[in-house]
Amino acid sequence: MCQNSGVVNMGPGEVQVKEIDYPKLALGDRKCEHGVILKVVSTNICGSDQHMVRGRTTAPSGLVLGHEITGLVLEKGRDVEFINVGDIVSVPFNIACGRCRNCKEGKTGICLNVNPARPGAAYGYVDMGGWVGGQSEYVMVPYADFNLLKFPDNEKALAYIRDLTLLSDIFPTGFHGAVTAGVGPGSTVYVAGAGPVGLACAASCHLLGAAVVIVGDLNEERLAQAKSFRCETINLNSDTPLAEQIAQIVGEPEVDCFVDCVGFEARAHSHGGESEEQPAVVLNQAMEITRAGGSIGIPGLYVTEDPGATDAAAKVGSLKIRFGLGWAKSHCFHTGQCPVMKYHRPLMNAILYDKIKIADAVNVQVISLKDAPKGYQDFDKGAVTKFVIDPHGMIPI
Amino acid sequence: MCQNSGVVNMGPGEVQVKEIDYPKLALGDRKCEHGVILKVVSTNICGSDQHMVRGRTTAPSGLVLGHEITGLVLEKGRDVEFINVGDIVSVPFNIACGRCRNCKEGKTGICLNVNPARPGAAYGYVDMGGWVGGQSEYVMVPYADFNLLKFPDNEKALAYIRDLTLLSDIFPTGFHGAVTAGVGPGSTVYVAGAGPVGLACAASCHLLGAAVVIVGDLNEERLAQAKSFRCETINLNSDTPLAEQIAQIVGEPEVDCFVDCVGFEARAHSHGGESEEQPAVVLNQAMEITRAGGSIGIPGLYVTEDPGATDAAAKVGSLKIRFGLGWAKSHCFHTGQCPVMKYHRPLMNAILYDKIKIADAVNVQVISLKDAPKGYQDFDKGAVTKFVIDPHGMIPI
Amino acid sequence: MCQNSGVVNMGPGEVQVKEIDYPKLALGDRKCEHGVILKVVSTNICGSDQHMVRGRTTAPSGLVLGHEITGLVLEKGRDVEFINVGDIVSVPFNIACGRCRNCKEGKTGICLNVNPARPGAAYGYVDMGGWVGGQSEYVMVPYADFNLLKFPDNEKALAYIRDLTLLSDIFPTGFHGAVTAGVGPGSTVYVAGAGPVGLACAASCHLLGAAVVIVGDLNEERLAQAKSFRCETINLNSDTPLAEQIAQIVGEPEVDCFVDCVGFEARAHSHGGESEEQPAVVLNQAMEITRAGGSIGIPGLYVTEDPGATDAAAKVGSLKIRFGLGWAKSHCFHTGQCPVMKYHRPLMNAILYDKIKIADAVNVQVISLKDAPKGYQDFDKGAVTKFVIDPHGMIPI
Amino acid sequence: MCQNSGVVNMGPGEVQVKEIDYPKLALGDRKCEHGVILKVVSTNICGSDQHMVRGRTTAPSGLVLGHEITGLVLEKGRDVEFINVGDIVSVPFNIACGRCRNCKEGKTGICLNVNPARPGAAYGYVDMGGWVGGQSEYVMVPYADFNLLKFPDNEKALAYIRDLTLLSDIFPTGFHGAVTAGVGPGSTVYVAGAGPVGLACAASCHLLGAAVVIVGDLNEERLAQAKSFRCETINLNSDTPLAEQIAQIVGEPEVDCFVDCVGFEARAHSHGGESEEQPAVVLNQAMEITRAGGSIGIPGLYVTEDPGATDAAAKVGSLKIRFGLGWAKSHCFHTGQCPVMKYHRPLMNAILYDKIKIADAVNVQVISLKDAPKGYQDFDKGAVTKFVIDPHGMIPI
Repeated sequence: MCQNSGVVNMGPGEVQVKEIDYPKLALGDRKCEHGVILKVVSTNICGSDQHMVRGRTTAPSGLVLGHEITGLVLEKGRDVEFINVGDIVSVPFNIACGRCRNCKEGKTGICLNVNPARPGAAYGYVDMGGWVGGQSEYVMVPYADFNLLKFPDNEKALAYIRDLTLLSDIFPTGFHGAVTAGVGPGSTVYVAGAGPVGLACAASCHLLGAAVVIVGDLNEERLAQAKSFRCETINLNSDTPLAEQIAQIVGEPEVDCFVDCVGFEARAHSHGGESEEQPAVVLNQAMEITRAGGSIGIPGLYVTEDPGATDAAAKVGSLKIRFGLGWAKSHCFHTGQCPVMKYHRPLMNAILYDKIKIADAVNVQVISLKDAPKGYQDFDKGAVTKFVIDPHGMIPI
Repeated sequence: MCQNSGVVNMGPGEVQVKEIDYPKLALGDRKCEHGVILKVVSTNICGSDQHMVRGRTTAPSGLVLGHEITGLVLEKGRDVEFINVGDIVSVPFNIACGRCRNCKEGKTGICLNVNPARPGAAYGYVDMGGWVGGQSEYVMVPYADFNLLKFPDNEKALAYIRDLTLLSDIFPTGFHGAVTAGVGPGSTVYVAGAGPVGLACAASCHLLGAAVVIVGDLNEERLAQAKSFRCETINLNSDTPLAEQIAQIVGEPEVDCFVDCVGFEARAHSHGGESEEQPAVVLNQAMEITRAGGSIGIPGLYVTEDPGATDAAAKVGSLKIRFGLGWAKSHCFHTGQCPVMKYHRPLMNAILYDKIKIADAVNVQVISLKDAPKGYQDFDKGAVTKFVIDPHGMIPI
Repeated sequence: MCQNSGVVNMGPGEVQVKEIDYPKLALGDRKCEHGVILKVVSTNICGSDQHMVRGRTTAPSGLVLGHEITGLVLEKGRDVEFINVGDIVSVPFNIACGRCRNCKEGKTGICLNVNPARPGAAYGYVDMGGWVGGQSEYVMVPYADFNLLKFPDNEKALAYIRDLTLLSDIFPTGFHGAVTAGVGPGSTVYVAGAGPVGLACAASCHLLGAAVVIVGDLNEERLAQAKSFRCETINLNSDTPLAEQIAQIVGEPEVDCFVDCVGFEARAHSHGGESEEQPAVVLNQAMEITRAGGSIGIPGLYVTEDPGATDAAAKVGSLKIRFGLGWAKSHCFHTGQCPVMKYHRPLMNAILYDKIKIADAVNVQVISLKDAPKGYQDFDKGAVTKFVIDPHGMIPI
Repeated sequence: MCQNSGVVNMGPGEVQVKEIDYPKLALGDRKCEHGVILKVVSTNICGSDQHMVRGRTTAPSGLVLGHEITGLVLEKGRDVEFINVGDIVSVPFNIACGRCRNCKEGKTGICLNVNPARPGAAYGYVDMGGWVGGQSEYVMVPYADFNLLKFPDNEKALAYIRDLTLLSDIFPTGFHGAVTAGVGPGSTVYVAGAGPVGLACAASCHLLGAAVVIVGDLNEERLAQAKSFRCETINLNSDTPLAEQIAQIVGEPEVDCFVDCVGFEARAHSHGGESEEQPAVVLNQAMEITRAGGSIGIPGLYVTEDPGATDAAAKVGSLKIRFGLGWAKSHCFHTGQCPVMKYHRPLMNAILYDKIKIADAVNVQVISLKDAPKGYQDFDKGAVTKFVIDPHGMIPI
């Protein structure tokens, strides 16, 4: 049990499965008697892992990746009181202490005590506090009593694991985007991006009772996936303006709610050619097609430093935004990491009571740990798949 | 077009269809140039009509009944600007001026300008301002620009009329109960009462994403109707305590959210015999089985005067409530008429985009105006049916 | 440092200062490595202590009293990370684990892990988990990182200690009542009760920007105290009906917001004689004089068992409430213990930046520990004073 | 009574008082039987009038200016029911129908029925629907029952008119900025800009209970005005970075809440010289000094077209915003015109019950109509004054 292996960032474009240290109840000198060591049941590859692997961040070589983790508790620190060995648990990707002002306000995405550099931390992520990633056999989770969501029944948990594994990040993240955009029963919604977060958001919109959910993307296969669960779709490669396409669906060129599930690597169709990177294009579309008085949820990642950006301003996270248009329409803009803990318990219930088929919506595909590098490659090429790594072969077929 | 007939309260236990005045743009001396005259497309019989007919209120003989109205605009007052002749519209049962403090705050159920006796008014209802009811061929609706919800397309409106007719009252009312009880994605909910409002509430809970919706009633046929759309049910005639029955379903003896869709005519199971009227029984159950910190939505009607009550206190609306228990659990209690306007537009969208089959949930049955008295009788006997009167034979079969 | 003494309940009507155990980082067998031991800087006598001493509860003889505590950290358990020896801290009267579902939702008044009998716990209180009270020299506080509010500067903390000592209970409790009643800039408010909680509530209403704050009580001296900080007052011994007195002040017989700071020991004026206990009188007044659509905050304590009640129903916490009137006015009722943690940090800022003189509002009087029994007696006789015990003589004169 | 005169925009930098038409109950061909004609009691010069006069918009020559109006009802249309001749009323600067979806949701700043060009309208303003301005003797107000706030007592209204005149725009606008920034009891707040809206916002923050209100500006006289009512101030001409100046006041380089009361004509200090226009400087400061999880209220105007901007992007309202920083801190951005109706009634109460001295805060100075052009000039030069025009000499000295 003292062996461990995990997915390691090796530099631009490459990850490898390598031997890594077996976790300790500590982060360097910081003791974590409040933590547990998990046998990883499932751990997912995320689009934001790709940002790092693509070299769009300053992520160092050698970083163990992975912040979407579900696990079985093997060992607990002496100060853990309510989580027990043998529990199967979901780990929110945001690490939180449960004791600072922000955590007490439910803002666990910007905990003040887990990252000396800035508010907010995550496992296996650049600038997010140095916590070891969980695309591995074993991983340590600090502040376990606070962070972990225990599933009510282990057997049922394994039966629903393809769905439950999405509680660590993309299901709550997509849901948060929808909630902050004001989605509710009867809403008309546009979801920008049909990657896994966009698809999870679209499925969340349906769960929230939206009347019509429109998903826009440049990739036709992703859109086909969205169509599979009753979404309307818009292919952004079309020369028909977006507003016009919206009007064809809902009878007017605007929607009630807009969710940006794309973020700073946004691309735009250019007439007569390839799409090109335009980091503010989705935000500007948001102001155009969201009705006056509407809200804009922005779970898609925007960064403070983007060394790989195409222009100097974008390199420091500065974007050209047509802010006056949003102002004229009294828009609200909701940004930031999803505070997963706010949502994971009720969304677990939605899964366990068969209210949503979230794994189907994002097309979960289970792979072994050794196949993780191939998963990264396929995902980078645009595979319409959410890859879930099963390091110990625990996921039933 | 100057003929009119409608359902008239004739005294305890009896209604008749009689000739009534063709509507004018006025209420007595009060001119209503802001009003319209509707050809009634559909108008539903409501449980609260039954309160009057049963003699549980001081409703006078001769009152034209009916506050659930959908209609076609035949004529408009000179001050109506945005509603047009030929529009098909839904009429919220609460009459509201759109100009007082409460209306401006969205509290249209307690408008200050439409009832000299107290805040709030309705069509065809005792103590509710004297506005003529709409279980008739033609009816007048004041403050038409403010009150009416215009359907986007007349043809489609008629195609969905069995569902849309429920927007005037019970769909929003049940939905409001769910919203004020805090129902959302993943919630566990108990809905007290499987009458039309209870069923509409249960369907609303599903629309809101509830994980599990439990409906309790003394009537097995009503419960069967609830089962037809994925509700769990509890027969209150059982000797098994309610909390225990809840625990059998959700694994603990409490729910997150409680909606009282019964009101003051509540009955309780008595061991070894008939059920008996106990006006506070549902409220006391609410405090027992709602989790600490939960909310209790109370769309069920409680009255200020109940001449037919079994005890003196209840006659003036005073109930024996185990308030200390609610206090210990930090409960919130949300009461009052549903402000229909807050919800009817998004719920219309939910219907028109096929997100909910609300007519099926409450078992709509269309009847002619002349059959209305039989509808009242059948409903009073416990028919598991929402009767929708079709005065002009406009509803497609 | 191993000596300790505290205020002990000796049975109906009597408290004594006695030697008690020096605190340990444990509650019986339950280890509390997450706790700290405090040298008590100040600890206040509360009206709810009086409920116990008067014999209105089942509080046992021998109970160490006191749940309003401010202290200096002397020792900390190994799991305490962010609170340090030497910090001066405010202790919320509700004990909370910071790790259960309710705590994560900010509902620290109904924590699930600190009282086996029911949600919610407190120091030195009957049925509240068995935690030792803090009207003593030293006391143990569990889950210290979560529960405690550290003051930014010890010197300044002592300078403002008469105000800051109220953060442990009555200032947040009164404030919570105001917030749940919907008090904001421009509101008209009625506060029932001019005891310390009522006065703290009235001062909170002013802080929240209320236009006019009316305080009602049977005790003219208490009302004089309310007048001292710009409140309007109503003496309930008057034969003029309450609604009429309200109208004389605000021009109409209703207010926007109502806060019940009295609870179950409510008394009412009886024509031509003594006041008499009527446990539901304040709730019924609330429905009468709160405008339609208004909210009613109920921080005043209502109990599940009241062995000393005058009638059988009230003995089990059942009250005769004119609920139909509240329903007709669409009232919301907000009950329960104040979750102190939701408010103590901003209210501390309000004190430290001189926005409120809360100690003056409630007339704080500092007494020694040995004078505590006299404080209890004086308070029970109606002294218009908030007694603050200074066990170590640390409070500057 | 058929004479009228008003302040007319004559082209860049010039306004004149000229004869204008006496108002009719109509806007061109659109009849306004729902309107009233007011004798203007007071009407204020606003910073956004200056935008037009400075030529920063496409406002035509000949436009009658003025959207901050208080008046006495002289005549009412036949559809007006609850406002009467002789009432003194406050006019929200946003014109709203009270009948569209947005008005029903309380979003009166983006009414759908009063401006064919876009949601939202105002009196005397470019692109805002063509409604005639009210810096005049007489003016027409449409949808009077909905729009107008009637003062409870005419005599008292005149006594408080210097304060009440600010209810038409800047008091609610500053208050809205504070509310959307999340200001409440105990907050630390930074208000960008010490013009009239900034000062009104700062006073609103105090009313809302903020612990400390910091106002930043480049103009020392304006800052002195802010200091006069207990604000802290920061002179942005300093070479000390803003965050450092904040830290000197509150002990950390961030605040809880940020309100941008400047808008698109923002200027920034340049080292060793004049300030220069930088339209995004305030938004970028907002993200820098607002704590993670904080909210940013933006009542300051940002425009969709800015012909006078210094760079091409800003000419179409596109700004360079360091959005990645805001995202990393989970900021929310709240934009748009204040919906005055949401606030004017409670703020009126706050004035009439002496809770706030808003006229003193913004330094109201009453001038005659003929002195209006001088008022425009003085205000443009930076006079620390809110000019209130008194066309009929009705304001008591």
